[in-house]
Amino acid sequence: MKFDDILNEIKPSQKERKQLQETYKEIRKKAEEISQKKQTETKIELVGSTDRDTWLSGERDIDIFLLLPENLDRETFEKIGLEIGKKIFPNGTVEYAEHPYVKGHKNGFEVDIVPCYNVKSPSQAKSSVDRTPFHNRYIKNKEINGDQVRLLKSFTKGGDIYGSRLKIQGFSGYLCELLILHYGSFNDVIQEAIKWKPKIYIDIKNHGNKKFDDPLVIVDPTDPSRNVAAVVNEESLARFIDWCNRFDKNPEKKLFFPFTPNPKPITKDEFNEKLEERNTNILCINFKAPDIVEDQLYPQLRKTEKSLVQELQNRGFDILRSEVMAEDTCTILLELNIGKQSKVKKHIGPPVYIRDHAEKFKSKWEKKDIDKKTGIYIENNRYIVEKERKYTTAKEFIQEKILNIGLGKNIEEKLKQNFTILENQESSKLLEEFGEQFSNYFNPLTSRMT
Amino acid sequence: MKFDDILNEIKPSQKERKQLQETYKEIRKKAEEISQKKQTETKIELVGSTDRDTWLSGERDIDIFLLLPENLDRETFEKIGLEIGKKIFPNGTVEYAEHPYVKGHKNGFEVDIVPCYNVKSPSQAKSSVDRTPFHNRYIKNKEINGDQVRLLKSFTKGGDIYGSRLKIQGFSGYLCELLILHYGSFNDVIQEAIKWKPKIYIDIKNHGNKKFDDPLVIVDPTDPSRNVAAVVNEESLARFIDWCNRFDKNPEKKLFFPFTPNPKPITKDEFNEKLEERNTNILCINFKAPDIVEDQLYPQLRKTEKSLVQELQNRGFDILRSEVMAEDTCTILLELNIGKQSKVKKHIGPPVYIRDHAEKFKSKWEKKDIDKKTGIYIENNRYIVEKERKYTTAKEFIQEKILNIGLGKNIEEKLKQNFTILENQESSKLLEEFGEQFSNYFNPLTSRMT
Repeated sequence: MKFDDILNEIKPSQKERKQLQETYKEIRKKAEEISQKKQTETKIELVGSTDRDTWLSGERDIDIFLLLPENLDRETFEKIGLEIGKKIFPNGTVEYAEHPYVKGHKNGFEVDIVPCYNVKSPSQAKSSVDRTPFHNRYIKNKEINGDQVRLLKSFTKGGDIYGSRLKIQGFSGYLCELLILHYGSFNDVIQEAIKWKPKIYIDIKNHGNKKFDDPLVIVDPTDPSRNVAAVVNEESLARFIDWCNRFDKNPEKKLFFPFTPNPKPITKDEFNEKLEERNTNILCINFKAPDIVEDQLYPQLRKTEKSLVQELQNRGFDILRSEVMAEDTCTILLELNIGKQSKVKKHIGPPVYIRDHAEKFKSKWEKKDIDKKTGIYIENNRYIVEKERKYTTAKEFIQEKILNIGLGKNIEEKLKQNFTILENQESSKLLEEFGEQFSNYFNPLTSRMT
Repeated sequence: MKFDDILNEIKPSQKERKQLQETYKEIRKKAEEISQKKQTETKIELVGSTDRDTWLSGERDIDIFLLLPENLDRETFEKIGLEIGKKIFPNGTVEYAEHPYVKGHKNGFEVDIVPCYNVKSPSQAKSSVDRTPFHNRYIKNKEINGDQVRLLKSFTKGGDIYGSRLKIQGFSGYLCELLILHYGSFNDVIQEAIKWKPKIYIDIKNHGNKKFDDPLVIVDPTDPSRNVAAVVNEESLARFIDWCNRFDKNPEKKLFFPFTPNPKPITKDEFNEKLEERNTNILCINFKAPDIVEDQLYPQLRKTEKSLVQELQNRGFDILRSEVMAEDTCTILLELNIGKQSKVKKHIGPPVYIRDHAEKFKSKWEKKDIDKKTGIYIENNRYIVEKERKYTTAKEFIQEKILNIGLGKNIEEKLKQNFTILENQESSKLLEEFGEQFSNYFNPLTSRMT
């Protein structure tokens, strides 16, 4: 495949580069002036793909790091970081990641002024941003082929697996860079990845000093104890490999670009048609989104989703699929084969041959006044009694018990305040907010490709 | 426990014994006269519990065996057997087991005149009746304590596990006799049986020469290759052990007698109440009973039941219980947690990592014209597609597919002619014929004990 056609679209033009360089110079100059007036020694570094020349055309993000002495206490550290940021961008906003930082705008670029500790090695990092300058220096020293990185990044964007945000759990830019470094080129990455069978372990510097449980392990060349691919879950990895297989079989340009047009929000009519066509039991648990960042929210949503699925399965409900969605409100979607069950439930007792257990079971369940739907009988060598099923619908169970299951902390707070369970057609009330997500749910990515 | 009270009821009186002896003498005399007129050498033997003095009061069965030379061809053998039988009982009826035989009545006794081959050893038996005279001689030589056998037989009757008929799959009289011989007394049998953990292997003569798969193995002292307990299935064995535990814990007289009063047929109102209380999906497949003996019918019914349960489970239906019933018609009862499912079904494809399987799956299911409810997606590293579920109710599946599943031969014939599936309340039409069986189904034996 000729990549020129793709690179024409994704590689920043000379004009873009110039704009970026000039913007950076201006800010750097200002930052240096400001920090020189401070007592505290501050190093200023441009980091990220814009500095490594692995950025994609159209990306307007500049990350400027303020490297502050590592002996500063947290409070002073944050204070100085914000002061410098606010002096550079008096109208900038304060954002919160692991540390607070200032976001401003200049010449059409979105500029983050991020304070970090100037640690001696990444293993001493107090938070993940402290590692970033090391990553930057490592990649820059390697004189990486930026175009190959650009191809791989675009390709993961096309497959909807780009980015280490916990909503996506995909491939970060640094991870893409390391794969290109390790294998040599985009084509080499594809050819190797189609042979991957998890777990995959890549250790460029052969210095890894820890056991990792993740399906994809790429030991950080700047930190032997860290897996750069730690957020990549089994599903993202499988989807990446699927995407590579697609490319290898049929190297189409469209694999490098997010599916266009973006999924159109599903209409109410289309939604109702889907419901009729499926005749499943769709339950949407809807509640106000807690005021936390996305990277905190999604793990909590998924934890809640997993608990619900598990608890319902334990009660004999057959879950077809589930999904989490978040905008101003959050929705946990559960789709069940059937939402109802009978009023009786088998309660399986001990084997006939384990006499003391058997006696206990019999003396309990043979009592006249105990609530049972059938007397004890024997099946597969075990005593069985049929009990009343407490919850005959999944909706009832969730309504009554959701606060008793494993939930994310902030989600628990919100659920305690209020939540609604929308069933089947009722769920169409959520289409205004989640029309795209529902469209995605009923039409998964790969089905939209064909 | 004092057993006198029980023995008073189950041991034949002097009067009963005398009646039996006289009846036997008369018939024997007649049989000898008749057979002496024949060319064929015929030995006449009284066999069974009446001969071994292990019979229960009230039993009115006399088995008289005609031992014919083993070189007779089958046709001649059957002809002579029936001729003698018919001369003894000119009004007798011809019955069919492995060989045809004549059943007649005298002095209130039901007398079977059963021809068998006079083989040299049980291992040369051409059918199971040929072994009976050997069992008879073996037990008689041992001078077994008849009262102990009577207690054990009555006890298994109380637990509804007496008899080797394939409807029951329980303990034959001979099996009870061997247990008493082996362990010494009724109490010893109980004390040993409560320690049983299948598989149990008893070989009185220590001469077994074969591997048996059955949960209870009692090697026939007259034939090293035969398991006397071959028909005893796991469930009967478990129920026997349960019964022994009950006796050991609380040696009540009622354990020795079939539950009295016998289960009253369930009324229509009671039946409907059960349905409402359970809210399950009850399906009764009803058809004319094929004209075969019970020992052939029940295995075929159970085979059909098992196939139905298996096929429905394979399609995601959750079977709570099932039962077979036979009178003039046969009924296979299936009770499902829920009889319905959604219109979609997950079709699980190969793992993403097995590329050639993956390609085949994708090229099949990504076709535009193939019927699918959702595009391909990835879950647990596998490709998944959602298909239309062919049968959304268990009833539909049975109606359409029952003739394509594993059935008993004679049942298949009857089903081809006609069958009806009665659902829930409709099943009450069967109460006239199967009221007792439904009563048993909803109130298993042990629940009626307490």
